[in-house]
Amino acid sequence: MSETSVFWKFLGSVSDQGRRLIRGGSAKDAPVDKIGRTLVEEKGEAAGVALAELFIERYRQLDDAAKAAFFTLLHDDFGPDDARLDGALAAYRAGDPAALSALHYAAEPLRQELLRRINVAPGGITALVGMRADLLDAMRANPDLAVVDTDFQHLFKSWFNRGFLVLERIGWRTPAAILERIIRSEAVHAFEGWEDLRRRVDTPDRRLYAFFHPALADSPLIFVQVALMRDMPAGIQEILAEDRTPVSPREATTAVFYSISNCERGLRGVTFGNFLIKQVVDDLRHELEQLRSFVTLSPVPGLRRWLADAAATDDTVLTDQDRQILDALIDGGAAAVQEAEADTKKAMLGLVGHFLVREKAADGRPADPVARFHLGNGARLDRLNWQADTGAQRIAESHGIMVNYRYVIDEIEANHEAFANRGTIAMSSSVRRSLRAQRAADRAKPRPAAVEPDGS
Amino acid sequence: MSETSVFWKFLGSVSDQGRRLIRGGSAKDAPVDKIGRTLVEEKGEAAGVALAELFIERYRQLDDAAKAAFFTLLHDDFGPDDARLDGALAAYRAGDPAALSALHYAAEPLRQELLRRINVAPGGITALVGMRADLLDAMRANPDLAVVDTDFQHLFKSWFNRGFLVLERIGWRTPAAILERIIRSEAVHAFEGWEDLRRRVDTPDRRLYAFFHPALADSPLIFVQVALMRDMPAGIQEILAEDRTPVSPREATTAVFYSISNCERGLRGVTFGNFLIKQVVDDLRHELEQLRSFVTLSPVPGLRRWLADAAATDDTVLTDQDRQILDALIDGGAAAVQEAEADTKKAMLGLVGHFLVREKAADGRPADPVARFHLGNGARLDRLNWQADTGAQRIAESHGIMVNYRYVIDEIEANHEAFANRGTIAMSSSVRRSLRAQRAADRAKPRPAAVEPDGS
Amino acid sequence: MSETSVFWKFLGSVSDQGRRLIRGGSAKDAPVDKIGRTLVEEKGEAAGVALAELFIERYRQLDDAAKAAFFTLLHDDFGPDDARLDGALAAYRAGDPAALSALHYAAEPLRQELLRRINVAPGGITALVGMRADLLDAMRANPDLAVVDTDFQHLFKSWFNRGFLVLERIGWRTPAAILERIIRSEAVHAFEGWEDLRRRVDTPDRRLYAFFHPALADSPLIFVQVALMRDMPAGIQEILAEDRTPVSPREATTAVFYSISNCERGLRGVTFGNFLIKQVVDDLRHELEQLRSFVTLSPVPGLRRWLADAAATDDTVLTDQDRQILDALIDGGAAAVQEAEADTKKAMLGLVGHFLVREKAADGRPADPVARFHLGNGARLDRLNWQADTGAQRIAESHGIMVNYRYVIDEIEANHEAFANRGTIAMSSSVRRSLRAQRAADRAKPRPAAVEPDGS
Amino acid sequence: MSETSVFWKFLGSVSDQGRRLIRGGSAKDAPVDKIGRTLVEEKGEAAGVALAELFIERYRQLDDAAKAAFFTLLHDDFGPDDARLDGALAAYRAGDPAALSALHYAAEPLRQELLRRINVAPGGITALVGMRADLLDAMRANPDLAVVDTDFQHLFKSWFNRGFLVLERIGWRTPAAILERIIRSEAVHAFEGWEDLRRRVDTPDRRLYAFFHPALADSPLIFVQVALMRDMPAGIQEILAEDRTPVSPREATTAVFYSISNCERGLRGVTFGNFLIKQVVDDLRHELEQLRSFVTLSPVPGLRRWLADAAATDDTVLTDQDRQILDALIDGGAAAVQEAEADTKKAMLGLVGHFLVREKAADGRPADPVARFHLGNGARLDRLNWQADTGAQRIAESHGIMVNYRYVIDEIEANHEAFANRGTIAMSSSVRRSLRAQRAADRAKPRPAAVEPDGS
Repeated sequence: MSETSVFWKFLGSVSDQGRRLIRGGSAKDAPVDKIGRTLVEEKGEAAGVALAELFIERYRQLDDAAKAAFFTLLHDDFGPDDARLDGALAAYRAGDPAALSALHYAAEPLRQELLRRINVAPGGITALVGMRADLLDAMRANPDLAVVDTDFQHLFKSWFNRGFLVLERIGWRTPAAILERIIRSEAVHAFEGWEDLRRRVDTPDRRLYAFFHPALADSPLIFVQVALMRDMPAGIQEILAEDRTPVSPREATTAVFYSISNCERGLRGVTFGNFLIKQVVDDLRHELEQLRSFVTLSPVPGLRRWLADAAATDDTVLTDQDRQILDALIDGGAAAVQEAEADTKKAMLGLVGHFLVREKAADGRPADPVARFHLGNGARLDRLNWQADTGAQRIAESHGIMVNYRYVIDEIEANHEAFANRGTIAMSSSVRRSLRAQRAADRAKPRPAAVEPDGS
Repeated sequence: MSETSVFWKFLGSVSDQGRRLIRGGSAKDAPVDKIGRTLVEEKGEAAGVALAELFIERYRQLDDAAKAAFFTLLHDDFGPDDARLDGALAAYRAGDPAALSALHYAAEPLRQELLRRINVAPGGITALVGMRADLLDAMRANPDLAVVDTDFQHLFKSWFNRGFLVLERIGWRTPAAILERIIRSEAVHAFEGWEDLRRRVDTPDRRLYAFFHPALADSPLIFVQVALMRDMPAGIQEILAEDRTPVSPREATTAVFYSISNCERGLRGVTFGNFLIKQVVDDLRHELEQLRSFVTLSPVPGLRRWLADAAATDDTVLTDQDRQILDALIDGGAAAVQEAEADTKKAMLGLVGHFLVREKAADGRPADPVARFHLGNGARLDRLNWQADTGAQRIAESHGIMVNYRYVIDEIEANHEAFANRGTIAMSSSVRRSLRAQRAADRAKPRPAAVEPDGS
Repeated sequence: MSETSVFWKFLGSVSDQGRRLIRGGSAKDAPVDKIGRTLVEEKGEAAGVALAELFIERYRQLDDAAKAAFFTLLHDDFGPDDARLDGALAAYRAGDPAALSALHYAAEPLRQELLRRINVAPGGITALVGMRADLLDAMRANPDLAVVDTDFQHLFKSWFNRGFLVLERIGWRTPAAILERIIRSEAVHAFEGWEDLRRRVDTPDRRLYAFFHPALADSPLIFVQVALMRDMPAGIQEILAEDRTPVSPREATTAVFYSISNCERGLRGVTFGNFLIKQVVDDLRHELEQLRSFVTLSPVPGLRRWLADAAATDDTVLTDQDRQILDALIDGGAAAVQEAEADTKKAMLGLVGHFLVREKAADGRPADPVARFHLGNGARLDRLNWQADTGAQRIAESHGIMVNYRYVIDEIEANHEAFANRGTIAMSSSVRRSLRAQRAADRAKPRPAAVEPDGS
Repeated sequence: MSETSVFWKFLGSVSDQGRRLIRGGSAKDAPVDKIGRTLVEEKGEAAGVALAELFIERYRQLDDAAKAAFFTLLHDDFGPDDARLDGALAAYRAGDPAALSALHYAAEPLRQELLRRINVAPGGITALVGMRADLLDAMRANPDLAVVDTDFQHLFKSWFNRGFLVLERIGWRTPAAILERIIRSEAVHAFEGWEDLRRRVDTPDRRLYAFFHPALADSPLIFVQVALMRDMPAGIQEILAEDRTPVSPREATTAVFYSISNCERGLRGVTFGNFLIKQVVDDLRHELEQLRSFVTLSPVPGLRRWLADAAATDDTVLTDQDRQILDALIDGGAAAVQEAEADTKKAMLGLVGHFLVREKAADGRPADPVARFHLGNGARLDRLNWQADTGAQRIAESHGIMVNYRYVIDEIEANHEAFANRGTIAMSSSVRRSLRAQRAADRAKPRPAAVEPDGS
């Protein structure tokens, strides 16, 4: 047994602490904003933990409307202290050398301190992550709340710093509660039940790794599934087939990251994926020295939406032939994919290459979130695979097409830098060949920036 | 065995992770500030962990002068981005509604981000806590560095939020490495070796509790020692005597906090003591329902320094008789304490009462750091004890006088508030009686504010 | 989280040890009996662990016939050393005072030492438990092997002494591998999958406890399921209904043991159930002081077989009316049970009472194994329940009838003694009333003694 | 952190179980033999655990005389059941084929069952091991009790079967309670305190391994200390010197077992040392593949006693010169050893070789217990070292001489077999050369057999 179960044990001890707190005080029947105000104003912290606990209890009882109202209040009334800020600005203008630092702290919204004080309660961090998920919902109706969300994100990025995370290998001896969480969170290749899970964690050539934070009991933050293989796979069947013969880990040459999923919606935008992949690559290289390749088998989740947009508008990327092929594929579903002729494949892979390499979001980065993720990590686009997954989800997303990204250890840093500074995308020669010539009018239409993908 | 050993185990797993990181890259021979610059500017995080590790390695090789120079650099060159700040200020002046939030983030010094990025390395937090200890040293020669220290403190307060701490009871089955740390850190009643420790953690009526942070392997942050007794003790001998007969915990009525010590100098000013005492009170009340009193036996570390100051200056507090008594005590040491007459005791306890209740630091709070701590937590000053400890440390500090503070559950919040808002000090009638009438010229001279005490 | 996961962790460490043993030596290609001979004759133990490992490896490759042959060999050739035994007998006859002890050891069959030496290998105990299961199979064809089985049982009873067992509460944080074992081993009320299991271990008023042996990694020995209720249940639906409202454990008055199952066929006859029930009663009383009743809801697994025997022979117990009722029930299945009239119920419960109280096995103890178990533990027969479970298994076993046994703390010892010494069965007055008058010709026909039941 | 601390945790859980047992019953005030009688006669086990607990409690209150009386009772009254034995003997004489097995079980003394039933109590095994230590004391006055001891040993050998033991590496993170046990148990090179211990467990080239049994909480059974070195050491200073420069484990070629000690006197004669050394050799070979040699640095504890015997009797081994040399060494102590001339060394090493190789105990095995142990394990006698340890204990034992035994993997089995079957002792050519010619009258005088040594 690995370190694993000790970690679960530890998680338990954290969440149990302080369960038996002194309740009471006059604040007991106050509304949640009143408690929040008391919590943040409290000089010293005499009633700190109990008050934070009370806040959490009250917040849980709110309905959606009351939550939205509370977030608006956070926006309107929990900004910086005006007088203090004015003073700091005056000092700054007067050239006081220490004023710059004072200005920063004076401009800090009170809600940051409120969030830190909620955190002192047992289960505080769990409550806050849930609150952020509520906030994301409320932001759809009230985009101004993004300012509040910035503060949540800022604190979460600091609290979930990679230095505080623990990598755990998940196996059949992992507590069922964790496994259930993983089953529910898998975003790319859904588990068909516990037996399917077992095949993916309890066979010698399959691995599942997750990041945990000590204070977030029972819930992994993100996990990645790895297949140890002899070759880079062109389709998901090679990985998930029930009757396959396992490879001895010592004989595998290729580690395939075939799914990466986040577990906590409330942590959206707090990026763990990059660290996770690199840590797992590092651990695998140390454990299995004969491994030569680290690749993914990844979905292209934005493909069909983009194709539909392109087809609907007077897009110059799609030729008439493209449009016919697309119509046929849309009508034919999985069957059409299986029976496709060579020119259909060629046309479609050309479009996929174009989409991944040339179509950009509003922020100038690739429109496809998975491409953005792996290319941003320093991987290169290695191969485009026709008929890689004919399950309903993949057909609906990308006509069954999946792609391989490749992490070449010695290239990662240079790729990352070229991508970050100049937007350059690293790709294999085969991908480059499949890119059709770019037409004059072919321009990348910006689309909304997307967050870290749920699936690799 | 309690949860304890699992926690140690967990600590180990955190610190082992990532030990085997990929090294290399061109930054390898760069000076520490250069690495820091790269680390903080790095778009994305391709080389993040490895770079942070390299930074830490380099930093460790610096001598004191080089460290001081690095801190000066942090002060001068790792402030906010000028252009961004100017833009944010302009937008703020123009009345942009979202500008307030932007101003806060624009004014954030780059060194905060640097510290967060150093933290991603395995052992990062340990390195940062050590760096802060170095900074505190460097601040003595260069007080301007206080601005840098503010950023360290800000981050540490957030990272060491009580919600992330774990309370552990320390016992004879605790790993020796932790026990050794505790022996070395005890600040009030030094351990005379392992057997002495054992008497304080492995007898039924003695307890030792500590707070840990999951990422700070092997080191408690703060610990408190508790004696379960039948009465409030008037001296340390009742607690530490080797030949005493242990009380059955079920028959104890009084929990005595007789020592509280911090373990990490680099966490000075990040307050845990308040939370620790309240958590232990709460746990003890739950475990031993018959407990009625929660008191301390505390030193008065600032007493003799204040008396010396008062004697040296033309102080109006000290009478001529006081001055004679003091001279006799200074000359006589422990023997003089043991042989003191009633009027000596009365005069001295009167002075102690005066010192604790009326002498203030520059910030208006009590001059004695231990008084400041317990009174700030909502305790009241309960009894002054003559000849409470005739060991050399206590004689030198306070002529052997110690005091009891009492935590009365139902008073804590009110005491705390009165203290925080109006400076009111809660005290028993016996202490009140021992206070001599305040003379006209008797004024509290401000003294430098002190941090959380190392001993209760 | 409880002690639990540490235990799983520990189990892992035991089984991992010595995995990397030196192989080799000349015995490598020898047949299994040859290796066994070497193992047992080896003076000292130079190659002990490696040889034992080799033995296990070889044994695993045997087919059923080869195993049977090996057991025969154990019977014929691994008895006591003849010369030594003769010597001991001679000394005994000569009246040597120490000869009695020597006689015992001289008469010990070599196979006992063989089993002890196999045990030194990593995984040795697992292999031996499996070997015993094979032996039980082989005994069906060759009853003489019972002599060999006696030695297995003797050692297992010593090794699985209750002092070496650990009680664990099973929950949703238990490793999946253990939960899977439990799902597969449940003998009374089969689990309908993981969700069903979760309902039985992860709701506040349901418990599952198991005994483990440190060296038998990953496998509970026996487990019991408990429902905390407000009344003694008359049927299984009250316990397993999916939509029931959970009772707060603090409000429960009755702990119901509704299923007890063994996990290891190779440990048949090594009784854990008695200790398990008493330990769980003890733990529950300590945890929930308001609990007043400890009862079972138990099957009557032998009922229908006995009724069929009685009907087939010219039995004097069954009246003609009984025979008609039985025929109707056999034809009607669950529906007939649900629609039964009062006189059917009365007749059948009368027969059940008769069967449990008066029908004896060849050893004079109750013919029904579950009755034998609970009555032998000191419980009393408390109530007979019509239509208690209309699932297929219970209909086939007992026409859906189940019974409650009650453990009255203050009666247990007296009941047990009366049962053990005089065969007296403790019963409630209601059960006594339901017993019909015993006819003259009504005699208990002995039947084969049965082992500890798989289900309570 | 290794597996270690989980194991300590587990130990705790075992011993905590059942602490809260139902007490009572009529046996409460009965004398210990009465309780024992009830315990063993009890049909079934209704009051088993509680009764066993009561027995242990009572036994603890006995004084030495009462204990001795109880052991005599075990000898006289807890033998086999006479009637059952007579029946079994009759059946055996009558040629009943199953009678052989029945004879063995009929001849089993009741005290074996008593010991098994005491074991069911929490802490039962601890109590039994203590009881055996008492028995060993009582045997000195009453050698007849050896028959009772045989039964203790028989059960202990079965219960402490190597398959149930767990090897743990001891380090500075090991619970202090275990470390304290180790300090107290060290028999060869006493620890000079905790710092000395730390040097032997917390430096890269020093190791300490121990065997534990899950049910014997907090106490290792046996432990061995290992030094990783570049050469086979000729004296203990090379190993224990405080100021030595540690060797990197990866550069060590030689693992030196420099001390092996048992912790439980009550387990005397239950051999673990052989298994321990072989397991550690195996683990070290796996971890550090470059290791070439596995040797000991061992005391010769029986040397001076033998020399004194030889000198006192008209022994033919000692020449007149030998006698003079011996007198000088006895007078001169450590100083004489340090200043010894070449012929003194030669004479003495010749005598040591003679003693180890030719002097036999009554059972025909080497008179020196350490030689018996290592040679019996299959090691060879490799080198005799003059002035290897000039500490008081070693001077008193062997004039400071120590020897190296060498475990050559490929020789172990053959050496062991030759030793076990023919008494042949494997030795290096250098040892062979140092053996002086055997004089005609030189005959091995048998001496009492000794148990497994406390020090290697």
